[in-house]
Amino acid sequence: MTLYQRLRQTQQAARSAGVDALFVTPGPDLRYLVGYDAVALERLTCLVIPADAEPVLVLPALEVLAARASGLEEQGVSLLPWQETEDPWALVAGLVAGAACVAVDDRMWAVQALRARRALPAAEQVAAGTILQDLRMVKDPGEVAALTAAGSAIDWVHAQVPDLLRPGRTEREVGADIAELILEAGHSQVDFVIVASGPNGASPHHAVSDRILQLHDAVVVDIGGTMPSGYCSDCTRTYALGDPDSEFRDHYAALQQAQSRAVDAVLPGRTCASIDAVARDYLTQAGLGESFIHRTGHGIGLETHEDPYIVAGNDRALQPGMAFSVEPGFYFADRFGARIEDIVVCTADGVEVLNQRPRDLLCV
Amino acid sequence: MTLYQRLRQTQQAARSAGVDALFVTPGPDLRYLVGYDAVALERLTCLVIPADAEPVLVLPALEVLAARASGLEEQGVSLLPWQETEDPWALVAGLVAGAACVAVDDRMWAVQALRARRALPAAEQVAAGTILQDLRMVKDPGEVAALTAAGSAIDWVHAQVPDLLRPGRTEREVGADIAELILEAGHSQVDFVIVASGPNGASPHHAVSDRILQLHDAVVVDIGGTMPSGYCSDCTRTYALGDPDSEFRDHYAALQQAQSRAVDAVLPGRTCASIDAVARDYLTQAGLGESFIHRTGHGIGLETHEDPYIVAGNDRALQPGMAFSVEPGFYFADRFGARIEDIVVCTADGVEVLNQRPRDLLCV
Repeated sequence: MTLYQRLRQTQQAARSAGVDALFVTPGPDLRYLVGYDAVALERLTCLVIPADAEPVLVLPALEVLAARASGLEEQGVSLLPWQETEDPWALVAGLVAGAACVAVDDRMWAVQALRARRALPAAEQVAAGTILQDLRMVKDPGEVAALTAAGSAIDWVHAQVPDLLRPGRTEREVGADIAELILEAGHSQVDFVIVASGPNGASPHHAVSDRILQLHDAVVVDIGGTMPSGYCSDCTRTYALGDPDSEFRDHYAALQQAQSRAVDAVLPGRTCASIDAVARDYLTQAGLGESFIHRTGHGIGLETHEDPYIVAGNDRALQPGMAFSVEPGFYFADRFGARIEDIVVCTADGVEVLNQRPRDLLCV
Repeated sequence: MTLYQRLRQTQQAARSAGVDALFVTPGPDLRYLVGYDAVALERLTCLVIPADAEPVLVLPALEVLAARASGLEEQGVSLLPWQETEDPWALVAGLVAGAACVAVDDRMWAVQALRARRALPAAEQVAAGTILQDLRMVKDPGEVAALTAAGSAIDWVHAQVPDLLRPGRTEREVGADIAELILEAGHSQVDFVIVASGPNGASPHHAVSDRILQLHDAVVVDIGGTMPSGYCSDCTRTYALGDPDSEFRDHYAALQQAQSRAVDAVLPGRTCASIDAVARDYLTQAGLGESFIHRTGHGIGLETHEDPYIVAGNDRALQPGMAFSVEPGFYFADRFGARIEDIVVCTADGVEVLNQRPRDLLCV
C-alpha cells in the first residue's frame, strides 16, 4: 500500500466514524502515514488530516528544511510553519474550523491535547487509534518483509547469546554485549535488553542488574530493537547455565508445548482471546496457570507493543497480515522464571513464524 | 532536596492551585518525584498523588518486582497492582473519588488522558506542568552537580570532534563516531547527534546525512545524551574545514559576541525574554536578525528541553538554580549556518557556565 493510499483510507475511516479531522503528532502514526520520522519535542509538529480536505503539516519554522528533505510535499502534504512566538494550535484550529469531533494521536502528549481542547473548545476529542488501528494492525507485504528482516536480525543476536553467558559475569555485562550486537545486526536502535538470571527471571520486566550469573541459573533473555525501516524486533529465549533441576525442566517442557500450540492455533477468524486461551489452558492443566501472570502477546510493527493484544476478553478476529508475539511464561517469585517468545504473522491459511532459533531449553 | 520533600512540595502546590490530585506517568516527572525510571508503555503505570493523602502507584502486576527494586515503598509510596484484564483507570478513579480537578502529566499519552476523562467525567483536567514546572525548573545543588558532570562529559566529546572532521568523510560516518564517544564519555544514552555541514548547517534540526564533508565547509555539531543520573547534556560548536571566507568569519564573530553577551546578562530577576533580547538585538545590529530564526535557549535537566524557555514573550524572572541553554545561531538557506551553545546555571550573583570548550571558530 502506498503512503498516499494510507492517507486516503484514513480519511475514509474518519468519515465513517464521524470524525472531522485527525491530529497526528510525531511517532509511529506519523511515520506510518507519511514516512516522516520526526522526534516528539515541546514545539508542536502536527499533521492535520481533515476528513474531506488535503492534509497539512503544521510545524516549527526551523524544521521546514528537515521536513522537505523527507519528501512530504511529494505526497500532497503542504507545510504550514509557525514562528517561535506564534501559537501553533491557533493555526491548527484555523484549518478545521467548525469541527465537531477531532481524533488526537494516541501518543500525543497530554499537554498538547489539552491545548487542542482550548483551541477547539466545542470539538469532542477521541483517540486516533480507534481510526488508525484497523489500518496499522494489518500489515501489507512490505511491512511483513520489514518485520521478517527484523526477526532475522534478532535471531542472529540470539545465536551469539550462548557465548556470552558464563558464570561470574554480571547481567549488566552480558546486556552491554547484547546491546552492541543488536546494533551490529543492523538495528538502528536498541529498544530493550532483558537479562534476567536466577530469581530475577521471576520479574517479567526486569532489565539488567549487577547480579552475577551462577551455575544452574535459568536466564531469560528478551531483546529487541528498531530497524532502519522503523519496524521492530522482539524475541525471548530462556537459557540454562548447566543442568537445571527436574522441576524447572518439567515446567519448561510444558511452556514449550503451550507456546507451540498457541502458535499453531493462529488462523484467520479465530479471536485474539482464543489464542491466549490455548496457551493459558495448557499451562493451567500443567499446574502453571497461576504462574503465567501476563497476556500471551502483543501486536508489533512500528511499535514494539501495538494492537492486536493477545489477551482474554479481546474478541477481535485475526486477519491475514496481523503480526504479533506469542510469549507465554512462568514466574516463581524468589526462585526462577522462563519465557519463550516468537513473532508470528497470520496468513491466509495459518501462520508464519518470523523467529527461527531453537526453542528447546539451551544449556550452555 | 529529598524525594520526600519534592512529593510534599508538589502536594502543597496542588492545594494552592485547587488541584485535587496529580496523575504522573513514566517519564521525567515520575523520575523527578520518586526516582522510578519506568518506560512509558501501553500498560498504565500512574503515580496518583492526592493533594491531601499518601501517594499510590497504580501499576501492572507484572512490574511490581521492578518497582519494588527501585525503592518506591521506602518513600511512602504504596503499590496498587492491576491484573491484565482489569481496567487500571477504575482503580485510579477509586483513589480520587469526588475530585473536581485533576492534573495529568504533560507527557501522558493522550489516549490515557482520554481514558482518565472517561473514568472521571466530572473532573476538570489541567496539565501537571503548571504545578511541577516551578519545582523542576529550579535545580538543587545535587541536580546542578549532575548537569555539571553531563557538561564535562559532552565537552570531552567535543574535544575529539576536530579529529573526526576530514574532507571525504560523510556526516553519517562522523555522527556514528560521535555517538560512540557520547557513550564512552559516560552517558547512558545518545539523545541526538547533529552534524550539519556546508548548506545543511542552514537547517537547525538537521541530523546527519550522506553528504561528504568538503574543504571550506562550516560544520555545526550539536550533540547530547543522558547520563546515568537521568540528567542531560547539550552543547553546540561550529567547526570550519580549512579557512572559511571573510563573510562567514564576520558573521561568526558577531555570533560569538551575541552568545557571550547573552550569557553574561544572566542574573536573578532578569526575565527570560530579556536574555533572548540581548542575543537578538546584537545580531540584529550586525545585520543577522532575520537569520536568527529560533529562540535563544531552553531549560535542561531530566529533559533536554524543559522550562524555562529563553524566548521573546516569556516574562518569567530568572532565579538561582535555573539551568538553560544559550544558543544563538545564524542560518542562510542553501549556503551555511552556525550556532554556539552552552548550558548555564543562574547563580545568586550571576551565572555559571557548564561547558568549557573554546568558542572561537575552530578551523580543523
